[in-house]
Amino acid sequence: MEAAGSAVLVSPEAAVSSAFEVAGAVKNVAIVGFGTVGRSVAKILCGDSGSSLRLTHVINRNVERKRVDWAPADVVWSDDFNAALAPDIDIVVELIGGLHPAKELVQSALHAGKSVVTANKQLIATYGPELFERARTAGLTIAYGASVCGGMPVLPALGAGLGGDRIVEIKGILNGTCNYILSRVENEGISFADALAGAQALGYAESDPTDDVEGLDARAKLVILVRTALRREVNVSDIPARGIGGVQPVDFVYAKRIGCTIRQISRAKSDGQAVAAWVQPALVRLSSAAGTLQGSRNVVVTTGEFGGDNVFSGFGAGGDPTAVAVVSDLVAIANGGSRLTINDQVQQAKVAPDYHSAFYVRFVIDDQPGILAALATVFARHGINIDSVLQERGFERKQLPFVITLERCANSQLHAALKEIATLQHLVEKPLALPILD
Amino acid sequence: MEAAGSAVLVSPEAAVSSAFEVAGAVKNVAIVGFGTVGRSVAKILCGDSGSSLRLTHVINRNVERKRVDWAPADVVWSDDFNAALAPDIDIVVELIGGLHPAKELVQSALHAGKSVVTANKQLIATYGPELFERARTAGLTIAYGASVCGGMPVLPALGAGLGGDRIVEIKGILNGTCNYILSRVENEGISFADALAGAQALGYAESDPTDDVEGLDARAKLVILVRTALRREVNVSDIPARGIGGVQPVDFVYAKRIGCTIRQISRAKSDGQAVAAWVQPALVRLSSAAGTLQGSRNVVVTTGEFGGDNVFSGFGAGGDPTAVAVVSDLVAIANGGSRLTINDQVQQAKVAPDYHSAFYVRFVIDDQPGILAALATVFARHGINIDSVLQERGFERKQLPFVITLERCANSQLHAALKEIATLQHLVEKPLALPILD
Repeated sequence: MEAAGSAVLVSPEAAVSSAFEVAGAVKNVAIVGFGTVGRSVAKILCGDSGSSLRLTHVINRNVERKRVDWAPADVVWSDDFNAALAPDIDIVVELIGGLHPAKELVQSALHAGKSVVTANKQLIATYGPELFERARTAGLTIAYGASVCGGMPVLPALGAGLGGDRIVEIKGILNGTCNYILSRVENEGISFADALAGAQALGYAESDPTDDVEGLDARAKLVILVRTALRREVNVSDIPARGIGGVQPVDFVYAKRIGCTIRQISRAKSDGQAVAAWVQPALVRLSSAAGTLQGSRNVVVTTGEFGGDNVFSGFGAGGDPTAVAVVSDLVAIANGGSRLTINDQVQQAKVAPDYHSAFYVRFVIDDQPGILAALATVFARHGINIDSVLQERGFERKQLPFVITLERCANSQLHAALKEIATLQHLVEKPLALPILD
Repeated sequence: MEAAGSAVLVSPEAAVSSAFEVAGAVKNVAIVGFGTVGRSVAKILCGDSGSSLRLTHVINRNVERKRVDWAPADVVWSDDFNAALAPDIDIVVELIGGLHPAKELVQSALHAGKSVVTANKQLIATYGPELFERARTAGLTIAYGASVCGGMPVLPALGAGLGGDRIVEIKGILNGTCNYILSRVENEGISFADALAGAQALGYAESDPTDDVEGLDARAKLVILVRTALRREVNVSDIPARGIGGVQPVDFVYAKRIGCTIRQISRAKSDGQAVAAWVQPALVRLSSAAGTLQGSRNVVVTTGEFGGDNVFSGFGAGGDPTAVAVVSDLVAIANGGSRLTINDQVQQAKVAPDYHSAFYVRFVIDDQPGILAALATVFARHGINIDSVLQERGFERKQLPFVITLERCANSQLHAALKEIATLQHLVEKPLALPILD
C-alpha cells in the first residue's frame, strides 16, 4: 500500500520551482477529461513559455466541441482514450472522474509506463492501495493531491509536515456544495429544496446532486484523509454518510440558541484500533473554524497528540484551485522527486460501529399535554440524560417544532430510544437527530 | 541557493510513516540545546521502541542539570558542542538558537558529514542560502520546517502543495507572544507594559522580549516564507520591523468602530520585481482570519494567482508543536527522502522602499479650535484624502485621543505629512499611524 497524497511527489525541486520552470527534461502531458479543471490545468501549463511541462494531448469524448484557441497548434485533440498511451506521453492526467473507465485508464497508463496525476477522489478512495502497488511495481508514480480539497495543500501538509506527530482526529467541511446550501438555508431561511435549486442554477451543484448532498463525495475524501493523517485504511462503503436534506431553517434558529450552527461535517477519530468515522450534518460552535466558514470554502482541522490543532481552509473545489493541485503534482513528477514505496505503516482498520456524542434532537409534534413526559421517560429508560429542552415561540400547536439536547451518549443508545419514540402518538415528523461537536 | 523548508525533506516514506517507525537503517541523532523544544524532541524520539531514529547524544552547557530519567541509559550527555561531531552521529539537531555559535555548529556538522535539522529562524533567514549551498555540495540536508510557525506545516504546504501556483502575497501573525499581549490589551484594556509583564510572569515572553515584541522574530520568519512562497530572496535587515509598544487600549476602541481589531502583522507582496514587506501592528477586519485569532496561536494566509486564499492556523510555538516539526524533518531524512539541489528559481529581490495602504492615525491633543482644520490642511497638501474622523466621548480635553482614517496612499506620503504635523502645536503625543489591511 502506498502513501499520502501529493506529499509523495515532493522533491526538492518541486518545493522551489514554479510550475512553469522545472529542472530536467521536458515532460509531455496528456489531459484526459477536458472539463473545468482540465481547462484550468491546460491554461496554467500553456501560460508559460519556459515550462518543462508540455501539454501534448487533450482527450475527451466529442473533443471537437472542447477545442480552445489558446493551446499550442501542435497539441493533439482526440476522442480516443487510447491516445493517452502514445509513446511520447510521459504523464497522464486523469480528470474523467468516477470509478470506470477511470480505473482502467489509470491501469493502462501505468502499464504503458506513464505516471499518473488524478483528481479522482472516488478512484483513490476505493482502489488507491491496488493502484499504488501497481505503480510501485512499475517504478512509476500516482499523484492525487487534487483529490481532497482542491486547491488546499492538505495532503502534503499532513503527510510531510506532520509526519512527526500522531494525528488522533481529523474533521472538516469537505464539500463546498453542501456548505453553500446550508449557508443559504441559514442566512436566508429558505428550504433545502430551494437552496439546492439555486445552487444548481448557479452551477454550484450538479443536475444529479446525490454525490454532494448525500455525503458520498465527502466520504471518499475522508477515506483518503484517514489514510494520510490517521494512517489507517478503511473501506469507503463502511463509513456512514447522511445527507443534509433533513435540515430545516428552524434548526438553525435552535442551534443558535445554544451557540451553534449546522454544517455538513466529516469526522474520523482513531482509538488505536477502530476508526470512528462519519459524514453527516452536525452542530458546531458558531465561533469554531467550521462554524465561521461560509459559502463554498472547505476547512480541515487535525488534532495531533503533540502538535495540537492545525486548521487549514481554502477553496476546496473549482477549476483553478483544483488545477493548482494537479500542476503541483506534475511539477513534482517532472522533477523526479517521486518514488513510491510500500507503506507498511498504514494499517487496515475497521470503522467503529458506534460513537459517542452529545446530541440535538428536533421533534415536530401535534402539541398535547404529556408529550414531554413521554419523551423524557423513554430517554431515561435508555440511560440518556437530557441536557436542555428548547421551544421557540410563534409556531402553531398542531405542528410545533421543539428541541431536546442530550448529554453525551452512544449513538446506538440514542437510536434505540428514537425507535421507541417513533411508536409514540402525536409525532408529526420523524425526529431529526444531529451530533453536537465539542 | 536552496529550497523550501521541510518540504525539501519529503520522501514517500516520510509521507506515510509515523515518526517512530521508519524504513531503512537506524539513524543516530544528537540534540544540541536541551531546552523546552529539545526535551520534547527527545520525548517523542524515546517514546517508541520501534523507532529507526535513535537519540544518542544530548549536548548542552552544564548538561548535568538537564539530565532526565526517562532517556535510555546509553545516551551520551555532554557539555561539549564538538561531541556532536562524533563519527557515529548521523543527524545533528541544532536547537541552541541565535546566529553564533549556531552557524559554526551547523558548518562543522556538515563538514563532518552530518545532516542538520534546525528550528533556528534567525540562522536560516540570515545564512540560509550559504548553508544550503554547503549542504548541497556535501550531498547532505539541512531541514528547517520548525523555523517558521512551530507545529504548523506551513513550509511543506507552500513548497510542495502550492508549487503549481504563483503565490503573490503572504501575510500572517507569526509571533504568538505579540498576539497574546495584544489580545490582553484588547480584552482587558490593560496597558502594553502590564500585558508584557503578565506574559513574562507566565513564561510566554522572554525576560528580554525585544526579539518578540519588536518584530525581529517575525521578520526572520517572513524572510523564510518569502523565499518559500514568493520565491524571492530578500535581506532580513531590509524589512522594516516595528514593535507593538505604541498600541494602547483606546486604539482597540477606535479600531472596533470601523469593524477592525489590531494585530502584529507580517506581510509580503511581490510585484514581480521588488517585494513590499513589513512587520508592524495593523488594523485587520474583526471577521478575518487574523482578526478572529486570539491568544498565542499563529495564522498564515497565502494568496495565489490561481488557487486564491489558503489559511493555515495552529500552534506556532511551544515545545511539543515545534518538536513535531523537528521530528517530521528527522523522519524525512531518516527515510533518505531529502536531496538538496540548487534552486535557480529563487531570485534575489529588493525590499520595496514604499508601499500603499489605507491608514489609521491616532492623535492625542490638547484640544483647541482649529486643530482638525490644521491637520486636514496638511493631509490635503500632501495629496492624502481623509476617509473619516472618529472621536470617542469621555476623554479630557487636555489629552484627547481621536482618530483620522486615510484613504489609500503611499506610506512615504503619509510620513511626509506626519513630519509636518509634528511641528504643529497642541500635539500631546507622537501620532500612532497603522496600516489598515484590505
